[in-house]
Amino acid sequence: MKVCEIRFKGNAENYSVIIGKNILKILPKKIEILCPKAKKIALIIDSNIPNKFRRDLKKILKNYDLFFYSFKSNEKSKSITTVNKLLNKLLIKKFNRSDLILSIGGGITGDVVGFISSILKRGTNFINIPTTLLAQVDSAIGGKTGVNSLHGKNLIGSFYQPKLVISDTSFLNSLPKREMVCGYAEILKHAIIKDKNFFGWLKKNSRDVFLKKSDALIYAIKKSCEIKMFFVNRDVNEKNIRMKLNFGHTFAHAIEVKNRYSKKINHGEAVLSGMILETKLSVFKKICNLKVLEKIKKVYQENNLITVIDQFSKKNIINKITPFLKNDKKNDDERINFILLKGIGKTTEPNKNKVSLNELKKFNKNITQY
Amino acid sequence: MKVCEIRFKGNAENYSVIIGKNILKILPKKIEILCPKAKKIALIIDSNIPNKFRRDLKKILKNYDLFFYSFKSNEKSKSITTVNKLLNKLLIKKFNRSDLILSIGGGITGDVVGFISSILKRGTNFINIPTTLLAQVDSAIGGKTGVNSLHGKNLIGSFYQPKLVISDTSFLNSLPKREMVCGYAEILKHAIIKDKNFFGWLKKNSRDVFLKKSDALIYAIKKSCEIKMFFVNRDVNEKNIRMKLNFGHTFAHAIEVKNRYSKKINHGEAVLSGMILETKLSVFKKICNLKVLEKIKKVYQENNLITVIDQFSKKNIINKITPFLKNDKKNDDERINFILLKGIGKTTEPNKNKVSLNELKKFNKNITQY
Repeated sequence: MKVCEIRFKGNAENYSVIIGKNILKILPKKIEILCPKAKKIALIIDSNIPNKFRRDLKKILKNYDLFFYSFKSNEKSKSITTVNKLLNKLLIKKFNRSDLILSIGGGITGDVVGFISSILKRGTNFINIPTTLLAQVDSAIGGKTGVNSLHGKNLIGSFYQPKLVISDTSFLNSLPKREMVCGYAEILKHAIIKDKNFFGWLKKNSRDVFLKKSDALIYAIKKSCEIKMFFVNRDVNEKNIRMKLNFGHTFAHAIEVKNRYSKKINHGEAVLSGMILETKLSVFKKICNLKVLEKIKKVYQENNLITVIDQFSKKNIINKITPFLKNDKKNDDERINFILLKGIGKTTEPNKNKVSLNELKKFNKNITQY
Repeated sequence: MKVCEIRFKGNAENYSVIIGKNILKILPKKIEILCPKAKKIALIIDSNIPNKFRRDLKKILKNYDLFFYSFKSNEKSKSITTVNKLLNKLLIKKFNRSDLILSIGGGITGDVVGFISSILKRGTNFINIPTTLLAQVDSAIGGKTGVNSLHGKNLIGSFYQPKLVISDTSFLNSLPKREMVCGYAEILKHAIIKDKNFFGWLKKNSRDVFLKKSDALIYAIKKSCEIKMFFVNRDVNEKNIRMKLNFGHTFAHAIEVKNRYSKKINHGEAVLSGMILETKLSVFKKICNLKVLEKIKKVYQENNLITVIDQFSKKNIINKITPFLKNDKKNDDERINFILLKGIGKTTEPNKNKVSLNELKKFNKNITQY
């Protein structure tokens, strides 16, 4: 069993991310150490998870009072209403701070369950078991929790760290290609903003990641978590350096809002588009060399990702998505805050590249030339 | 102008509590330093606050985009529904993390507005202006925020520190006697659990506090905040020593739940009752000398508080309130967690005095002898 462990070092809390294949059996020992007073465990499980895992968990955790809740995860159920319903279920069962809430599912499940854990009795033990590649490499790391509002995505939430993250790659066996692409987008982002060598590794090994070869998967998840953790450790509440992780995401969010979070384009696909657009913006602003854009595009081509972004490279695309940029929570005035690219492994500093709406109009006129 | 300043020293944050009379005019300078990027200010104001203060604040903060929201504070409006409504109002106005939310009101207002601030875009600037004695000496200090659920009080919430607390005693001019008693209960509690000298001062000067003499008020608020801060600084998330502040509150909460938070008995009155009952329990458990109980009773008598607690000293009272103890969030098993009294200024350690339901039955039989 190949297992990696990464430590998060926050102000008050520490926790591990454990990555491996078929590793759920470590749960009881970990819970004994991390939540010694837990008697009840709520298992909030994405309804898409194969039943096998439910049965496994029931056996593995047989010494606890178990409460299973099926969670239908989609952007609509990522709401205050869902939070309220689940809180009521836990309160009826008299869950205490010292009991444990387990999230088993993708990013949406983790975000909602993490948020619930953070506000149930002002903070209840929480362990996150991400089951999609996207959640394993990104959303399960860093303690961002939250739900959507009518006015935008993730506008209501908290910073709350789990006691433990277990990324078991056996969940990925049943993951569709499109979902793999989704996680891959964030892996690639992490390489682009921070690690030239890892970008090189991805150029050679991305195929194995998509083929779900265990070693490649575990390595890619581990590197990805390390890079994310690097930023989170230095800036838990996202006041500065952590914002670098938003590369690609300013446009990505706007694309998702414009599409009303429809299934036409998922988060990872929006990020893939966003990264290309923001690299182009970096070239347009003369911060970045055209060759860098070419290198990134090549990785897209070799992994058949180019069709995804094609539709978002068209004429007038920036003008179309600009109206949806405004209420992004990273802005603190009328100009738009971007993380731009200087080269592979290097971005601009947060809050140093505010782009006015006028500049975006000019960029829109010039975009077809890249 | 007599002004006191107390510093909170948390892991990541620091903030001041400023106490004085007619001190709201310091706000603009403080906001400039603490929230330099703020453009919009939401003023969420308890509907009971005299209009004069609204007008004053409008003048004082004239350089900002102001949004006034009237908040009808009661235990019913302290709900997720209210939180959701207010969040929507702020999101429509495109409030950002760097803008500012001001709470102007009593404990309920501060708890709800603090909670909203903590989850709006995962944490928005928050300044608390408590306007009741209870809020000034207790709930505004320590970062506990939250709302009630159908299943109990304050079951949903977060730990979130404000950028600043301003306790202006001029708000107390219009405060009814019963509300003064409410705050006084917590002041007295702080003295009883931590500070023999302050308890001595209260024996002599409580009269002046009730007469709202400025110097006595400011001193009592300051001492009270210092004692609360002592515990909060050492244990922000209430895992251990901070629980000492729960003295009197285990029974008090049960009394409030039993009465369905009706106006027959308010929080302070429940705490006054709870402190007497828990001191009696301490005597019953032979942790505390009967003389200590007598000393505390004397302060009650001299300040005409005894009628409040009379009804809760009657036969069978413990049996009546015990059923309402169970879902208190401080318990982590079937026994009830109490902070008991060893003497004036000294309590037992948290989690060291779990009392079984059987013991409470015996105590119930013996209570009339104290």
